[in-house]
Amino acid sequence: MFTVHSIIGSPFGRAVLATLIEKDAPYRIQALGPGAHRGPEHIARHPFGRVPAIDHDGFQLYETQAILRYIDRVFPNPPLTPADPKAAARMDQVMNANDWYLFRVVGVPVIFNRVVAPKLGFPGNDEAVVAALPEARACVAAMDTLLGDAPFVAGETLTLADLHLFPHVDMMTECAEGREMLAGTKLAAWHERLATRPCFQRTSWDALLEAA
Amino acid sequence: MFTVHSIIGSPFGRAVLATLIEKDAPYRIQALGPGAHRGPEHIARHPFGRVPAIDHDGFQLYETQAILRYIDRVFPNPPLTPADPKAAARMDQVMNANDWYLFRVVGVPVIFNRVVAPKLGFPGNDEAVVAALPEARACVAAMDTLLGDAPFVAGETLTLADLHLFPHVDMMTECAEGREMLAGTKLAAWHERLATRPCFQRTSWDALLEAA
Repeated sequence: MFTVHSIIGSPFGRAVLATLIEKDAPYRIQALGPGAHRGPEHIARHPFGRVPAIDHDGFQLYETQAILRYIDRVFPNPPLTPADPKAAARMDQVMNANDWYLFRVVGVPVIFNRVVAPKLGFPGNDEAVVAALPEARACVAAMDTLLGDAPFVAGETLTLADLHLFPHVDMMTECAEGREMLAGTKLAAWHERLATRPCFQRTSWDALLEAA
Repeated sequence: MFTVHSIIGSPFGRAVLATLIEKDAPYRIQALGPGAHRGPEHIARHPFGRVPAIDHDGFQLYETQAILRYIDRVFPNPPLTPADPKAAARMDQVMNANDWYLFRVVGVPVIFNRVVAPKLGFPGNDEAVVAALPEARACVAAMDTLLGDAPFVAGETLTLADLHLFPHVDMMTECAEGREMLAGTKLAAWHERLATRPCFQRTSWDALLEAA
């Protein structure tokens, strides 16, 4: 049994939940209340105060990429890492490009202020959004180049990179600036194809709130 | 043949070179001159303007973690990823904790100002160093907890996590604040054990400068 300590709405937490669903693995969500990610109980499990963190029959682990790869190793079916080294490299590259670039130049300045802040009931920082847009657009263009023409990030089948990246792109579709950046891209078509999967339908912010 | 486009002194570039040496794989270094990482030739290979980026017989790849994992797949001996899922999870976790935390709260504010800036001939920002120290110390303590008591990050054998993390910790030993943070830690003992490996001896900043 997996326990997933997360915050409802976290794109990183959603990637873990979606991966568990793709594997048909048993899990339960332990949702952290406001501010609890900085509390002593959570710091004991994740000293950097982030989410998600998991407990798998007593094995504790944090860092989303590490959790996704761990799930893929302990539940081998369906495999979510390509056997071909070049396809696997593309998967790894997109996962890290998400963490190093997309999250930092789109997620933090644009998505946080336009999507997360309103949901949490406080105003977003308009200046931060406007200032971030040129770099955000360049980042989306670079991510779009990585995506290529295959149905999934790393080729013909779903991999951890699709599960890792989707929650971030999905949040982009919830604000005007994000939709504008995605318009006409391969990323947008990829998002549309993936959005119907049960693993994402069942882990949207609203679906998790309803289930909580 | 691997071509490694990098900047001499980059800890991420050093991780790639050290991994190639551990695999006894053929490579050549293409060192970028000052500012060249922002030039059109490099942006064509790495749209985010970072290093390293590799070319392996025409296959181009950027993002250090993706490159390390690719090398481990195309040259299986010696294996640098544990077969045990929990040990592999620790490897993955430390690699990502390096990128998310250690590089950002120690590397950028402390190491850059205390080690990199003087080598490049400009003054470091003292205030940034002092302001960063509390978070930097907490980060080092958390990394030390992850390390555990085994000889290597993920247990009894060298893995990609050792190769990924070492260059960052090694730079810490080059300034007083870094040495003070490491004093008495498991990280310091781990660093001392690894520092004698040829893969790190041959890829220090000075060794690469001499070879260039």
